[in-house]
Amino acid sequence: MHVMVIGAAGMVGRKLVGKLAAEPAVLGYEVTRLTLVDVVEPPVPAALSATSTAPAVDLSSEGSAERLIASRPDVIFHLAAIVSGEAEADFDKGYRVNLDGTRALFEAIRQEARRERYFPRIIFASSIAVFGQPFPEKIGDEFFTTPLTSYGTQKAICELLLADYTRRGFFDGIGIRLPTICVRPGQPNKAASGFFSNILREPLAGQEAVLPVDEDVRHWFASPRSAVGFFVHAARIDTSLIGPRRNLTMPGLSALVGEEIEALGRIAGKKAVGLIRREPDPVIRAIVAGWPTNFDARRARELGFTAESNFDEIIRIHIEDELGGRV
Amino acid sequence: MHVMVIGAAGMVGRKLVGKLAAEPAVLGYEVTRLTLVDVVEPPVPAALSATSTAPAVDLSSEGSAERLIASRPDVIFHLAAIVSGEAEADFDKGYRVNLDGTRALFEAIRQEARRERYFPRIIFASSIAVFGQPFPEKIGDEFFTTPLTSYGTQKAICELLLADYTRRGFFDGIGIRLPTICVRPGQPNKAASGFFSNILREPLAGQEAVLPVDEDVRHWFASPRSAVGFFVHAARIDTSLIGPRRNLTMPGLSALVGEEIEALGRIAGKKAVGLIRREPDPVIRAIVAGWPTNFDARRARELGFTAESNFDEIIRIHIEDELGGRV
Repeated sequence: MHVMVIGAAGMVGRKLVGKLAAEPAVLGYEVTRLTLVDVVEPPVPAALSATSTAPAVDLSSEGSAERLIASRPDVIFHLAAIVSGEAEADFDKGYRVNLDGTRALFEAIRQEARRERYFPRIIFASSIAVFGQPFPEKIGDEFFTTPLTSYGTQKAICELLLADYTRRGFFDGIGIRLPTICVRPGQPNKAASGFFSNILREPLAGQEAVLPVDEDVRHWFASPRSAVGFFVHAARIDTSLIGPRRNLTMPGLSALVGEEIEALGRIAGKKAVGLIRREPDPVIRAIVAGWPTNFDARRARELGFTAESNFDEIIRIHIEDELGGRV
Repeated sequence: MHVMVIGAAGMVGRKLVGKLAAEPAVLGYEVTRLTLVDVVEPPVPAALSATSTAPAVDLSSEGSAERLIASRPDVIFHLAAIVSGEAEADFDKGYRVNLDGTRALFEAIRQEARRERYFPRIIFASSIAVFGQPFPEKIGDEFFTTPLTSYGTQKAICELLLADYTRRGFFDGIGIRLPTICVRPGQPNKAASGFFSNILREPLAGQEAVLPVDEDVRHWFASPRSAVGFFVHAARIDTSLIGPRRNLTMPGLSALVGEEIEALGRIAGKKAVGLIRREPDPVIRAIVAGWPTNFDARRARELGFTAESNFDEIIRIHIEDELGGRV
């Protein structure tokens, strides 16, 4: 089976590719070929290097989508996007990459299928940014999408396109709305959501971390391992069970910052907790106040998608997957 | 004030233009100039013919939106669209006109505003086709949009664009989701929804009409006069009251086909009712079964939008506006 990952150089993309290389039958059929796409050339797993390619491609540039789809991948994971802050800062770039790039991909599949029978599964990484406040206490599966960012708007539009192209029989699409991924590996970054991971990852590595909000801030989380699991499950699932409502809020854990810190204390001790420095930042507090805090992701759970149920699990997964099992 | 109506040759467009000509101050400022746009040249009201133009323009053709917006209208009513059946039959044309044409219009406004300060009010005709079954008994203002037609998808996408362009301050947009307009004047047409009007309009004119569904079919209605009222009110309203959720389900009347017929009997007598011929059509019945039947349009009502509360009113409006007050 030929699998394409667009956005393969990103954090979740790399982990997904790692999973496919480590368990080539995980999608139900043996992965024999990978096409890994990103704006920078993504790394290719050694085991599949003979049959795989890793082109550096901007999906939104003229003709790129057609050239990619000419290789007729059976499963396409589309994770590539300009992130929220950049899509807000650069209106044109956000729409060009996040909307026009995705639409070009969908359209290339439709055109390819007109030439010769072709019906790939496509899994699209959407986001809880499709929702905008005010929210109910728990956002249900039928709550409307009123994004308050251009990024969220672009994701919501692509969800609609995905559902329509799927309904018309042009491909077999699923959109998955990811929770905030935690613990994000790597260096602290400047994303407004960065601190949710920083306050666990840095103390676990013996480093200081800054907490810019109060401990009673609630948010919606899943581990990187769960994120990979969502993509894998979406590629395997019997889509006749989903029906025409193809965009699903993924399950996650609704937790307080205080619960993150308590779990850190249980697993890594008081000293680790002591490395968290409180530096209230009104700008970050205001941004975070606009984010969803809790979902009732019933449809996705009923369809077999799973995530963590407490922060101890999330931290243990980080320790296993990133720290070789040791704190 | 310079007002542009795109889709000015259509049924609602013509009525809206008629209203603006008859009551030039109805939008709060005197209308001194009209630009009436459609794919066929729309008629210009005599009173404003000296200052007005009526270009035959396809909004989706290269450069059209820019040329139209160069005239810097203060208020833009955008009613132009490929209808549901055609957008389903011709996928490319539906997306080109309903999505790309509307996006080109929005983008032309943004670009014009970059050249010189410009902040028009734009009222976009959306549709209850943004919703797809299964529905709750009454669709509330926070129910999600899962269209089951390409037309509904295109409308839902334009709603998202309108909200984002408005949030970013590029224009002052409102999307209004119209109920089924009844009684539609003119000839019986082949739209699947045509019979809702045909069974009233034709008997009122002494003609036979065909009813292809049962009398217990429920649907969501407003008169053409209400439709014009929605557009006028949307152009006048203080949009700071609306907030960022710029797309509103318009109020309407939820009624059974049987209630239509009872009202016809009360107003035009048994003989008129006798002109309705029952010819059950399983294809139309199946299409209609997928349509929404009832809404709780609370936000729009609170914002001052109004519609009829019974079918007697809807029929009387038709008699006043189309039949010179006589049956």
